[in-house]
Amino acid sequence: MTAQALLQANAAFYEAFAQRDVERLCSLWARDAEIACIHPGWPAVHGRPAVLESWRGIFGGNPPDIAVTDSRAYVYGETGFVICTELLPGGTLVATNVFVLEAGEWRLVHHQAGPAPDIELPEPTGPLH
Amino acid sequence: MTAQALLQANAAFYEAFAQRDVERLCSLWARDAEIACIHPGWPAVHGRPAVLESWRGIFGGNPPDIAVTDSRAYVYGETGFVICTELLPGGTLVATNVFVLEAGEWRLVHHQAGPAPDIELPEPTGPLH
Repeated sequence: MTAQALLQANAAFYEAFAQRDVERLCSLWARDAEIACIHPGWPAVHGRPAVLESWRGIFGGNPPDIAVTDSRAYVYGETGFVICTELLPGGTLVATNVFVLEAGEWRLVHHQAGPAPDIELPEPTGPLH
Repeated sequence: MTAQALLQANAAFYEAFAQRDVERLCSLWARDAEIACIHPGWPAVHGRPAVLESWRGIFGGNPPDIAVTDSRAYVYGETGFVICTELLPGGTLVATNVFVLEAGEWRLVHHQAGPAPDIELPEPTGPLH
């Protein structure tokens, strides 16, 4: 599996988040491999029941809009991670999303996001289409 | 390789940090696999030269004392990560350290640390030995 497939799996995670589709988001996590999650400012969450419950809790509230940029894939055989920058209304986060291959799909086993310096988006330099 | 070996590799990382042994710390990172690092509050650092330079910069300053607790290992074949809590004088961090097997050793390919809620260490409940 290529880095491109890993980046697509990472994009699917943020697409599910943007669509507030918690069932889709939960389906992107590994089913056989052990999973964990570190939400920004939280202690670590260990194990599938607690991790999925944490996401349901976030979606039960008012989840922020997240734009994702600077995604970089690191592949090590059947495991890999993507580092990306998350732009939220309240500030900038940097995230690591770890995936394993399960049933031919890259599935999440870990997510950590924490505060990063705010970045400035470049101004459009040409005419808008 | 077992979770125990992964926890030992994680402990070696913090021992090198505690001893201010930057050469030892740099030797614990993968040499063939690509590496990355996210220091708390920093943007992501990509690639071996930049990652090792970031650690030399930290050791060129006044690195904090770090006590480590709550280490949990996740192993996926020849890749794995450890989640642990870092207790610093200024606050509590939670970290993910990703490792790959290289030449029979667990070597670091990624470290991310970010702020976590402060945890209270339990009071001793029995007589001190």
